Amino acid sequence: MKRTLGTCYYPEHWPEEIWQQDAARMVEAGLTWVRVGEFAWSRIESTPGDLQWGWLDRAIEVLGNAGLQVVLGTPTATPPRWVLDKYPDMLAVDENGNPRKFGSRRHYCFSHFGYLQECRRIVTLMAERYGRNPYVAAWQTDNEYGCHDTTISYSDAARLAFRDWLRARYDNIEALNAAWGNIFWSMEYNSFDQIDLPNLTVTEANPAHRLAFHRFSSDQVVVFNRAQTDIIRVHSGTPIAHNYMGKITDFDHYDVGADLDIASWDSYPLGFLEDRVGAAPDQQVAYARQGDPDFQAFHHDLYRAVGAAKGNKPVQEGRWWVMEQQPGPVNWAPYNPAPLPGMVRLWTWEAFAHGAEAVCYFRWRQAPFAQEQLHAGMLRPDSQDAPAIHEARQVRDELVEAPEVQSKQAPVALVFDYVSEWMWKVQPQGQGLSYFTLVLDTYRALRRAGLTVDVVPLRPDAFSGYKAVFAPGLMYLPDAVKAALTQSDAQVVLGPRSGARDADFVMPHAPLPPAIPGLDVTVSRLETLRPDMPVALDGGGAITGYLEEIEGTGDVLLKTGAGTPVALRNGHLTYMAGWGDAECMDRLIARIGADAALTIRKLPTGLRTRDTETERFWFNHTTVPIEFEGFSLPPAGVLRIPLA
Amino acid sequence: MKRTLGTCYYPEHWPEEIWQQDAARMVEAGLTWVRVGEFAWSRIESTPGDLQWGWLDRAIEVLGNAGLQVVLGTPTATPPRWVLDKYPDMLAVDENGNPRKFGSRRHYCFSHFGYLQECRRIVTLMAERYGRNPYVAAWQTDNEYGCHDTTISYSDAARLAFRDWLRARYDNIEALNAAWGNIFWSMEYNSFDQIDLPNLTVTEANPAHRLAFHRFSSDQVVVFNRAQTDIIRVHSGTPIAHNYMGKITDFDHYDVGADLDIASWDSYPLGFLEDRVGAAPDQQVAYARQGDPDFQAFHHDLYRAVGAAKGNKPVQEGRWWVMEQQPGPVNWAPYNPAPLPGMVRLWTWEAFAHGAEAVCYFRWRQAPFAQEQLHAGMLRPDSQDAPAIHEARQVRDELVEAPEVQSKQAPVALVFDYVSEWMWKVQPQGQGLSYFTLVLDTYRALRRAGLTVDVVPLRPDAFSGYKAVFAPGLMYLPDAVKAALTQSDAQVVLGPRSGARDADFVMPHAPLPPAIPGLDVTVSRLETLRPDMPVALDGGGAITGYLEEIEGTGDVLLKTGAGTPVALRNGHLTYMAGWGDAECMDRLIARIGADAALTIRKLPTGLRTRDTETERFWFNHTTVPIEFEGFSLPPAGVLRIPLA
Amino acid sequence: MKRTLGTCYYPEHWPEEIWQQDAARMVEAGLTWVRVGEFAWSRIESTPGDLQWGWLDRAIEVLGNAGLQVVLGTPTATPPRWVLDKYPDMLAVDENGNPRKFGSRRHYCFSHFGYLQECRRIVTLMAERYGRNPYVAAWQTDNEYGCHDTTISYSDAARLAFRDWLRARYDNIEALNAAWGNIFWSMEYNSFDQIDLPNLTVTEANPAHRLAFHRFSSDQVVVFNRAQTDIIRVHSGTPIAHNYMGKITDFDHYDVGADLDIASWDSYPLGFLEDRVGAAPDQQVAYARQGDPDFQAFHHDLYRAVGAAKGNKPVQEGRWWVMEQQPGPVNWAPYNPAPLPGMVRLWTWEAFAHGAEAVCYFRWRQAPFAQEQLHAGMLRPDSQDAPAIHEARQVRDELVEAPEVQSKQAPVALVFDYVSEWMWKVQPQGQGLSYFTLVLDTYRALRRAGLTVDVVPLRPDAFSGYKAVFAPGLMYLPDAVKAALTQSDAQVVLGPRSGARDADFVMPHAPLPPAIPGLDVTVSRLETLRPDMPVALDGGGAITGYLEEIEGTGDVLLKTGAGTPVALRNGHLTYMAGWGDAECMDRLIARIGADAALTIRKLPTGLRTRDTETERFWFNHTTVPIEFEGFSLPPAGVLRIPLA
Repeated sequence: MKRTLGTCYYPEHWPEEIWQQDAARMVEAGLTWVRVGEFAWSRIESTPGDLQWGWLDRAIEVLGNAGLQVVLGTPTATPPRWVLDKYPDMLAVDENGNPRKFGSRRHYCFSHFGYLQECRRIVTLMAERYGRNPYVAAWQTDNEYGCHDTTISYSDAARLAFRDWLRARYDNIEALNAAWGNIFWSMEYNSFDQIDLPNLTVTEANPAHRLAFHRFSSDQVVVFNRAQTDIIRVHSGTPIAHNYMGKITDFDHYDVGADLDIASWDSYPLGFLEDRVGAAPDQQVAYARQGDPDFQAFHHDLYRAVGAAKGNKPVQEGRWWVMEQQPGPVNWAPYNPAPLPGMVRLWTWEAFAHGAEAVCYFRWRQAPFAQEQLHAGMLRPDSQDAPAIHEARQVRDELVEAPEVQSKQAPVALVFDYVSEWMWKVQPQGQGLSYFTLVLDTYRALRRAGLTVDVVPLRPDAFSGYKAVFAPGLMYLPDAVKAALTQSDAQVVLGPRSGARDADFVMPHAPLPPAIPGLDVTVSRLETLRPDMPVALDGGGAITGYLEEIEGTGDVLLKTGAGTPVALRNGHLTYMAGWGDAECMDRLIARIGADAALTIRKLPTGLRTRDTETERFWFNHTTVPIEFEGFSLPPAGVLRIPLA
Repeated sequence: MKRTLGTCYYPEHWPEEIWQQDAARMVEAGLTWVRVGEFAWSRIESTPGDLQWGWLDRAIEVLGNAGLQVVLGTPTATPPRWVLDKYPDMLAVDENGNPRKFGSRRHYCFSHFGYLQECRRIVTLMAERYGRNPYVAAWQTDNEYGCHDTTISYSDAARLAFRDWLRARYDNIEALNAAWGNIFWSMEYNSFDQIDLPNLTVTEANPAHRLAFHRFSSDQVVVFNRAQTDIIRVHSGTPIAHNYMGKITDFDHYDVGADLDIASWDSYPLGFLEDRVGAAPDQQVAYARQGDPDFQAFHHDLYRAVGAAKGNKPVQEGRWWVMEQQPGPVNWAPYNPAPLPGMVRLWTWEAFAHGAEAVCYFRWRQAPFAQEQLHAGMLRPDSQDAPAIHEARQVRDELVEAPEVQSKQAPVALVFDYVSEWMWKVQPQGQGLSYFTLVLDTYRALRRAGLTVDVVPLRPDAFSGYKAVFAPGLMYLPDAVKAALTQSDAQVVLGPRSGARDADFVMPHAPLPPAIPGLDVTVSRLETLRPDMPVALDGGGAITGYLEEIEGTGDVLLKTGAGTPVALRNGHLTYMAGWGDAECMDRLIARIGADAALTIRKLPTGLRTRDTETERFWFNHTTVPIEFEGFSLPPAGVLRIPLA
Repeated sequence: MKRTLGTCYYPEHWPEEIWQQDAARMVEAGLTWVRVGEFAWSRIESTPGDLQWGWLDRAIEVLGNAGLQVVLGTPTATPPRWVLDKYPDMLAVDENGNPRKFGSRRHYCFSHFGYLQECRRIVTLMAERYGRNPYVAAWQTDNEYGCHDTTISYSDAARLAFRDWLRARYDNIEALNAAWGNIFWSMEYNSFDQIDLPNLTVTEANPAHRLAFHRFSSDQVVVFNRAQTDIIRVHSGTPIAHNYMGKITDFDHYDVGADLDIASWDSYPLGFLEDRVGAAPDQQVAYARQGDPDFQAFHHDLYRAVGAAKGNKPVQEGRWWVMEQQPGPVNWAPYNPAPLPGMVRLWTWEAFAHGAEAVCYFRWRQAPFAQEQLHAGMLRPDSQDAPAIHEARQVRDELVEAPEVQSKQAPVALVFDYVSEWMWKVQPQGQGLSYFTLVLDTYRALRRAGLTVDVVPLRPDAFSGYKAVFAPGLMYLPDAVKAALTQSDAQVVLGPRSGARDADFVMPHAPLPPAIPGLDVTVSRLETLRPDMPVALDGGGAITGYLEEIEGTGDVLLKTGAGTPVALRNGHLTYMAGWGDAECMDRLIARIGADAALTIRKLPTGLRTRDTETERFWFNHTTVPIEFEGFSLPPAGVLRIPLA
């Protein structure tokens, strides 16, 4: 399959007269894909039942005729105002009990049955009409599930659906009371109908209650999405995607992915750096025009895994795209700088290096009205070329001689699991401690060591073929996974908090965690620490934020200055009892890497690399030239070297 | 007209026995004016319809007999509790949907028709009774419109009134949808009755929606105020004022001013410095006991312009007062220090230097009860002299030989417009970027250069007679104003963001902004920057926070270290493409000043100057003596030099 | 009475099979007391009226048979879910108007009459059943009144009860209007039924209104608690306690204490340091594993006074316990480190040094489920010994030869009064200024000087027998107390803000405060200051945050660098006109101490001392050894020296 480019286009925003010229310019710029339709419901059906397909028929015809392939989005992320007239209680409700009103987008609660029916209706109509359209080569369901914190809703609809979900999970209320430990503080229920959502409690709600609500909320997204894929598949044989948003972890992307053919995500490196990476101020300045050097790559690897979820394929077989690629300044971060020249090209090639099939720029032309006026496009609002289109053309030319989509299994696996993410959210125990960040910190360290990494799900069959498996912070570790790790041929690094809770958020205690066969480690106590209280390690580096006291035997790979063990190894299993800083993690990875026969390189600041089947890529994420191993890379430079 | 002093007095707070003595002491202290009545509704009408005018009759009589002139306030800022019994839904509603309850003041929604009728009734009664009273020499409507964020209300009354306002503005819903670009995200409405207020939306509401709500909310204040002035003018021939509050920009003061004879404002230099100037911590410490050296002066110049709004007079003809002058520590800022000795005198003379007719100290005697117990007065609660009265007496003596109220047109105009303020609020694009602050930063730079400045409204006829016109940040620039600037004889400095949006918040794009005749500049892209990411300029200074990429021709007055143009001149028109820091602005003003034949002085830190028709004033805002141009000024010193 | 140890035990959390073994291990560890029952309502009465006493009977039997004495808690802090079915409006309501929902604990409004009746019912049943049980040796009412900000509720029930409370206090609405100064801003009421709770007002509510609501809210706790003690006393002759929580000041603990026999409090030194002490970051790091060196001691001394409230006994006769002692990391602070080894012992001995009868560790075994999974116990979740039990055993052994409970009157009294705490909350006048912190700062200074201190209530009879009395920040100072201080033989230090308001929050002004007989000081003006604006004193130290201008005569003990008086003495009365920093306070105490014939020692950082009748204790709160006066104390060291 060829590596391809694309864009997101809103024919409904522009006079029909210019569609043809737009299409021609897209083709000229080397684009293959054009996504349309996902926000257009009010033009498809401006009043209930009055379907206006004509304009969309013509738009698809114009684009297809020009040689483009259309990704058709279902418009359910932006129900028109009249839908709210029909279902006044369809809105999600925020943590404080306020309905989240009409006037922007994503104004619906996933648990509202009436709205779900409304979605089934419009998706059926759309699939019937375009399911066999020769130009429609892929579908996208909805848009950015969970964006703007929309996964979790405290609505009446959610409350009722949550009770049903609990009934199905626990069967009887005594079982729920027992599983949650509700005797603590006399929280025992007499019936499922007494259970409320876990917001606005006097002090924190039972973590079991909160975890269940996270699981439920995630499942509601899965059900909502599946309602659409079920319909589309009846009418269309083309692949279905969803465009996930960066660092949205309130629902399980693997679960949603199991119903999709392609995972895609929306990559906004500068917006993310300012808005959600959580980097230190000096890093924010250093990468302000380039974006975080690992955040996008991590998502690329994550979505390769999500793209493999359907049928539980090996992650290297995962199909994935960047559905929306930042092309210039955006409008929604605290600060919105312009990218360093060359970064749009770098971001594009980086996606291909991680196995992307397509990179689509959002959006074709900057819109002069409404919420995203200051979100750059490939064209300016006056239809002149914006800087991004020049870099897209460069990639177009470079793609001519580049190989097709490639991925191979990486030597190193890094586990990312949504349940553990929710568990840390429910019980961080220390301010700011986040599973996502712990995994990202591990990923950064692996990348600083020049390693190519697969992100893998928490499944017993996910670890085979790797030289090393890193599985930090997995608070919930099913027995089958423990067994798989115990039996793995890889060097396995677990901890901290491995297996600290069961599926219902109770601490296993006979014996205490992690209770992993083959690993003689017991966490006897844990503590969390202020950021200004690092615990120095013997030999360099420190533990910050989170530290366990462990009992056990084995090789002490890392210990504190006072001599207490921090990383303890039994055979191929290593338990890491704290949150290491960069130097600590570099030391750990050097040691594990040596034992796993990995090639460890200490990369210069901001240089990153990745191998595909036949290529080695190098990326310079900094604003200065980098010399390394005989080559030189300018700022924003990309180097692609064929592998022997 | 003589320069006069006054105070604010609450006879209803004190035993009738001491009114006469109070009045005598006011006269002794050199006061001319005494404001009464604005919070007294519950004593005028303690239960519905039971009017008790006697005490107020006597109070006015006592004050008038002593030789004082009364400013009579309408009491509508503090409706008694029984009014709420009558109209339980009269309260404003905050952004989160909570009614803003009775128990302090300003507890009403401007859009509530019942309360408006109630105001008409009490104002009619008051105007009938006192309209011809010989001692009532001026009126004040309500008190501090908009204080405590009370302009904007999300009440049901506001929602209904907003729909009516939109109907009147757009006539039909298709026009509104088109003007707002509601096709974006399928936000199109089928009828005006579907339009809600733009709070609590899932993510940001359409900026067009938000701007319209700002315009509407401002208009509601205008309507409310006009209802009172219409009534008062039937019964009284004396001038009508309103006392605006510092840095309240949620309604258009020029529009309200068009119905008033005198603009007045309430000047609390120390409270403002702590609470709303937004100065850096070192400035907060340096000026903690003196107040910001430019904030008050800017408001003086602004309210001179507002005072000229009735009949669109030239700003130098604007009538304005300080209705409330801070006399000592206040009670409402985060910290409430005492003024440096001499500052009450300095503040008073500064107001006169900017053309004030009167400066009234708030309040006569510190109240020992209720919300403002720790707000200083001219007297202590035990009726002893407080420090302020001594400084007032000094001004009284100094006024004897000083000229009368004087103002002349300044050589420099600085535009301040409320619509642009709302537009920046709606779309700052970078955290903390504020139009008000941009204008204030420009004003500071002009003052550091020793210039006397007029603040002027955004009107085509506002620019004649000036040597230089500064118009930063005017996101909405009507064609007639563009034409006036193009044809001006002055050096005109525009940008950034000039003409970036139309009246409905759509970006003009054929051509792109600023699209000013005679100025060959196009803003091709813009970016916002973290505060720790200044972009250094070639030759000194930097751009901080906001920077545009411009295309065009002309003289490059300022450019970045990388050589991209930042200030570009075509003839008398200069476009400034970013937010300059102090050094940048000093350089720009030096250059423009030279070309405009202005006298530029680089003033020492904290020294400020202003010219009236026949006087040059110097003010030392610092805690140390200043030597400059042959004179020496002690801390808090004031120097008045007759001009030849 | 012997000094004793104990623990908190939840038999309902564990299989009945292990109760006996648990009891035996408690006895082995040297424990005397075991608290049970306070969260067990849903197991006592799982559905309305279905009482299940059997398990509790057996648990008490097992524990008692093992030799333990039981403290039986009433279960009213955690009403089961079915109680909410019965009284859906029983929940407290937060400041924003949201009900504080079921799902954790303390989910009730003190003003809800139905819930109060429900409490009377369950307490009656419990008292009838266990009132004469030989193993039940003490009672605890409810649990941690006010924890999680639960004293103050904005519910409908509270609104109605507040109106009744106001009727009882003021009799007629005119009296209330006059007392509150409601004429200010026309806030006058026509009837009590118009009075709302003081939340969600447009700007701050009348401080008189807010203070009244604080007084009312406190009284509701007293009434609620008394309802339980009245019932228990009918059926039981054993002492009744309540376990207060650290730094909960929303209700008057002396008032609640007047109905109890023993005061107890829950001491979490590490949790408090992170969560509520408010120490500077460097102190947070320095004491992260030891807790603040004065915060616990202050509470010990406070609760000795609260324990003496019944019958207004001298504070040295106050009976008090630590009902819950932190044994290891907790789960609820922003960060939760482990204690320095030895600190559990130190904390225990420190309580005994301050006169505690018992120290009970919370909890026996760490719970693997629900909200406090990461709260350490004496046992780990797997029933192995946790570190705390070893330190408890050490104390057990040390107690064998130690004297019994001892207390004597200290040479120095420090007044702590809840009304002044509320008054400063209502009107801090400067951000962050808190009465509690002012008193704690004074206490710290007294402790740094090596003094043993009694905390005393604000009662005329509370001061006799002391060499020095410190009474900072008492905004409300009844005449009888003023008289007692005037007539005292002690050196008395008053100010700042002494007597600044009357009981209804009006400023006395004829004359101005403090108006203390024998003290020629008048506060003519006050100011508050940014933390970065200290006012340096002549001779060292500074005033920070709060400073008064005073007029008067006498000896100037402290003055500013500019020469204005800060501490002024008339005979034995000294007025302190500002908030002194540590050096200032050390100087003041050295001077007062000399005149009061106190022995002043300047203790090394982190060393603290206290005298009982026959012992002098020394405590090393630091992580390094301390040498002082010929002895050496290791980190966390405790030294007990018999006094001659």
